[in-house]
Amino acid sequence: MILIIDVGNTRAKAAVFEQDSVLEWFVFETKELSKKITELLVRFPKIHAIVVASVVHTPKEAFLDAANGVAVFFISRTDHFPFNNHYASPQTLGIDRMVLASGATLQFPGQNRLVIDAGTCITYDFIDAQDNYLGGAISPGLRLRYQALHQHTSQLPLLSLSDPDGFVGTTTDSSIHSGVVNGLVYEIDGFIAEYKALDSNFIIILTGGDTEFLAKRLKNTIFANSNFLLESLYQTFQYKIKND
Amino acid sequence: MILIIDVGNTRAKAAVFEQDSVLEWFVFETKELSKKITELLVRFPKIHAIVVASVVHTPKEAFLDAANGVAVFFISRTDHFPFNNHYASPQTLGIDRMVLASGATLQFPGQNRLVIDAGTCITYDFIDAQDNYLGGAISPGLRLRYQALHQHTSQLPLLSLSDPDGFVGTTTDSSIHSGVVNGLVYEIDGFIAEYKALDSNFIIILTGGDTEFLAKRLKNTIFANSNFLLESLYQTFQYKIKND
Repeated sequence: MILIIDVGNTRAKAAVFEQDSVLEWFVFETKELSKKITELLVRFPKIHAIVVASVVHTPKEAFLDAANGVAVFFISRTDHFPFNNHYASPQTLGIDRMVLASGATLQFPGQNRLVIDAGTCITYDFIDAQDNYLGGAISPGLRLRYQALHQHTSQLPLLSLSDPDGFVGTTTDSSIHSGVVNGLVYEIDGFIAEYKALDSNFIIILTGGDTEFLAKRLKNTIFANSNFLLESLYQTFQYKIKND
Repeated sequence: MILIIDVGNTRAKAAVFEQDSVLEWFVFETKELSKKITELLVRFPKIHAIVVASVVHTPKEAFLDAANGVAVFFISRTDHFPFNNHYASPQTLGIDRMVLASGATLQFPGQNRLVIDAGTCITYDFIDAQDNYLGGAISPGLRLRYQALHQHTSQLPLLSLSDPDGFVGTTTDSSIHSGVVNGLVYEIDGFIAEYKALDSNFIIILTGGDTEFLAKRLKNTIFANSNFLLESLYQTFQYKIKND
């Protein structure tokens, strides 16, 4: 039994895997990390390994203390990945983007792959059919857009994510919902169109916390899986064990 | 000679009009407003009226003191506008959006009009061919997107606006430029496509500080004029004088 943890800027996501199947998913605040690991190890005493990918600088000691003797594996940039990394600044490539690219490479072999992770930020990552990771794009996620409108103007309210009623907002609130939600949907469809123009043999994978909200609004056919990062992290770990 | 001033969140823009032509344009920080008005009145002693639209709550006294006896006209929501306002929350419709809608209505009669103002925020405003103002959308502008990425993550740098080199960013910096710039371009093209699907008799007006940067990147044919707001403010004032 393996505990997989993805540590994000504000939230951490975890899953307990038995063989290749998920027993349970968890989401909690990053600051609760040590407490949660302790709890999960009590609840699932068969866990024999903890696999961690973190985009924040969490000291390793915090994990090791909480792990209480269970082996901890940190997936980092220097690990083996199943793609050829052509990113020109690999030292600044976030580990979450590498893990997503890794999962896409392993799960969807022999085709062009675009992974879109819709969380705090929207990351776009492209791996071609020859397993070359080429890079992509980063833009603000839905909540960041709402926050930016409120924080940097003197009149606009801070709104929560909500479905816009068409694209013509007839109030200030519905104008903001249209600008943020439709704006991001047009952005994603625009990026997908550019990539698909490169090659028809393409799969688009959408993941992250806003997967469900966005998936039904996109024009394009996509593979939507909000847990793709954790699944990819599990597969990256299996790949590491085989190839280390 | 008339001095036209648009007071924005961080910057104010001004123009000196003689008859219907602009003698000179000015951009300065909003906090420099009083000082600038005093300077301009010394430099252009023929100015006999100052017309102001402000999205920030600047006390009227500040203008009146600086105006030193020259008549000051504040364009506000209660003025006469050349369109029928169907916005469901007119009390929260920004004066800048009303002035843009007014200018579009007066300058491009008898057609559907979408005004896109690319500044701190991107505002979309739609006036149909029968001069009904229906609303639109609001999303973060280019600089807000760069700021949001930096402020709300622990790893991403704060970048200045720059041309992305294609849509596949191969470094973290070029990924951010692609996400912000291409993302907004896809958003704008997406909104334009939705509006154009309503009716083929459509003009798209792009204005605001990022007009030049964005205009050449858009797929659609647009009327680009970075000074459209100031021109619209002048026309709104002329309309007000005729109809008051």
